[in-house]
Amino acid sequence: MHTVKVSLGERSYDIEIGSSLDLVGERIQDLGLGSKIALVTNPTVKKLFGRSVVESLKAAGFLVMSIEIPDGEQHKNLDWANAVYTALLTNGFDRKSALVALGGGVIGDLTGFAAATFMRGVPFIQVPTTLLAMVDSSVGGKTGVNHPMGKNMIGAFYQPKKVLMDLGALQTLPKAEFLSGMAEVIKYGVIRDAAFFNYLDQRRDRILALDPEALSHIISRSCEIKADVVGRDEHEGGLRAILNFGHTVGHAVETARNYAVRHGEAVAIGMVYASRLAHRTGLCDTSVPERVEKLVQSYGLPTDLSSLGSMPSVTALMDIMQIDKKAEGGKVKFVLPKKIGEVVITKEWDEAALKEVLEK
Amino acid sequence: MHTVKVSLGERSYDIEIGSSLDLVGERIQDLGLGSKIALVTNPTVKKLFGRSVVESLKAAGFLVMSIEIPDGEQHKNLDWANAVYTALLTNGFDRKSALVALGGGVIGDLTGFAAATFMRGVPFIQVPTTLLAMVDSSVGGKTGVNHPMGKNMIGAFYQPKKVLMDLGALQTLPKAEFLSGMAEVIKYGVIRDAAFFNYLDQRRDRILALDPEALSHIISRSCEIKADVVGRDEHEGGLRAILNFGHTVGHAVETARNYAVRHGEAVAIGMVYASRLAHRTGLCDTSVPERVEKLVQSYGLPTDLSSLGSMPSVTALMDIMQIDKKAEGGKVKFVLPKKIGEVVITKEWDEAALKEVLEK
Repeated sequence: MHTVKVSLGERSYDIEIGSSLDLVGERIQDLGLGSKIALVTNPTVKKLFGRSVVESLKAAGFLVMSIEIPDGEQHKNLDWANAVYTALLTNGFDRKSALVALGGGVIGDLTGFAAATFMRGVPFIQVPTTLLAMVDSSVGGKTGVNHPMGKNMIGAFYQPKKVLMDLGALQTLPKAEFLSGMAEVIKYGVIRDAAFFNYLDQRRDRILALDPEALSHIISRSCEIKADVVGRDEHEGGLRAILNFGHTVGHAVETARNYAVRHGEAVAIGMVYASRLAHRTGLCDTSVPERVEKLVQSYGLPTDLSSLGSMPSVTALMDIMQIDKKAEGGKVKFVLPKKIGEVVITKEWDEAALKEVLEK
Repeated sequence: MHTVKVSLGERSYDIEIGSSLDLVGERIQDLGLGSKIALVTNPTVKKLFGRSVVESLKAAGFLVMSIEIPDGEQHKNLDWANAVYTALLTNGFDRKSALVALGGGVIGDLTGFAAATFMRGVPFIQVPTTLLAMVDSSVGGKTGVNHPMGKNMIGAFYQPKKVLMDLGALQTLPKAEFLSGMAEVIKYGVIRDAAFFNYLDQRRDRILALDPEALSHIISRSCEIKADVVGRDEHEGGLRAILNFGHTVGHAVETARNYAVRHGEAVAIGMVYASRLAHRTGLCDTSVPERVEKLVQSYGLPTDLSSLGSMPSVTALMDIMQIDKKAEGGKVKFVLPKKIGEVVITKEWDEAALKEVLEK
């Protein structure tokens, strides 16, 4: 097992990579939680792993209640958060009772938000079961639900007490979901670690074969980079925005396609376009967009808008970026690579250059 | 103008007592806010002070939108928080846009919660217009809304950027509302400051005549005590619970009467009973409950259950206290005075003694 520490003073916590779902109860026994635990999950994940986790929690002496949220992003909303509150109140949960989020990003974000806001905050534990949740959403404390007018518009920064990852869960993950997670893994290489970028290129076969050692390495390194960034800038006052590399165009693509595209696929496309924009505006040489595109493509991820079937119009994308939530004071931030392993955050990007890049 | 600082590291802020509603815009110009402000208020307060505040905000260069929440505690819920999110999104608010809460506790709590959770947190300013909000709910960062199964069950700890109090607003406050606020003022004397308790006894006439100097003193001293306690224990890990003096029985009374009793009146009764329980269990001599009762009564506040008209049964109150949100691990906390100016927090109180005290 490999442990990555997220250093945030009294809100610090451990990410345990290579833990086992059979040991969730044992691994959270030292957190000073109350006796009651609510396991929040969805029907698909519950069928696969629910029993193991519930039994491990019971074996550790907890009283366990399960809360099921239907599968799908459309249930990550205020109504389902309210359903969680109601279940907790009905079962006499108090301020020391904990929530355990077992599932992907939807479950983690929604459960984290419910934990952040139930009785002004109760402890919660992330047990991500998808690659995307392991390397991204379960770490760093961004919680939230969607509003009909925008994704993640309602939320809070709220850190879990622990993050437990059983890499075995990835064996049952659909291939396309795994690849979607790989887009975020590639992102960490581009923004912060050229050697890691090279590793992803060289060990592709082992990674795609779900070799345990390779998986452990890519997830650990991704979490280390994210933990380091979050530890320096928890609330996205500055540095943390580098984690949005590929997300400016990515979010626009998701919105234009009404989220009928996987997050990682949208980010993959966004990374390629951001790299091209960086080159077009003289920030980096042409090898950067070329290498990003090649690596993205080699993991079976889309690299341009035309691969989306019904292609969103460039005008639509430009409009959506204007109202993107990362906008501040009317200006959209772009994260652009200077080289593999280093990016800059800028509001000073050339609109005409972006249009050209998108239209190409 | 008197300024009280709430010291919470980078979340520190000033409470300005004796500011003017005509100067709200000017007083928040140095906070680094974005250009858009949402003024959240209710119809009653809007009629009295809305125009002054809106004009001062516009004069300071802000773009102002008003959001009206209907009067009354029953609107402090998730649906109205959602209505605030929708209004903000419809009007293109971003992460630097600020919310200004103009009104009493309902407006302050709801607006604070919306600010805490919109885009994972936007700045907000408290402009309390009732005595209760000035000395209690606007200070300290407890925000939240009610759930059908309990008051303030959904919420967050989230500090305002500034609290601005125009004492002139109290001139239009109904007498009963003013007295309700006085219960919390008396509380500060009992828990932390015997000299302040004596001041409240000696200057009653001037306070009840709304003498500006007396008002400024009691509000400043109340805010100082609350700021000191909150600065030492923001998230109610320990000390902060002393602010709940009178609230254990008080909450039970409010719940039993379905909130058809003013908060301060319930707290007044709760302070008298908690003091009697403290004496009954040997924590203090008989002068403490006598002095508390006398002061509470001298401000025209109720001192016992029988003064409530339809009196809740002792059994009902005892049952409600068991599910009170201050309960942790099934034990209810009581804040009990050792003398005027000093209290202890305890879970070790005698149930039979409480029953006797309530039945008397």
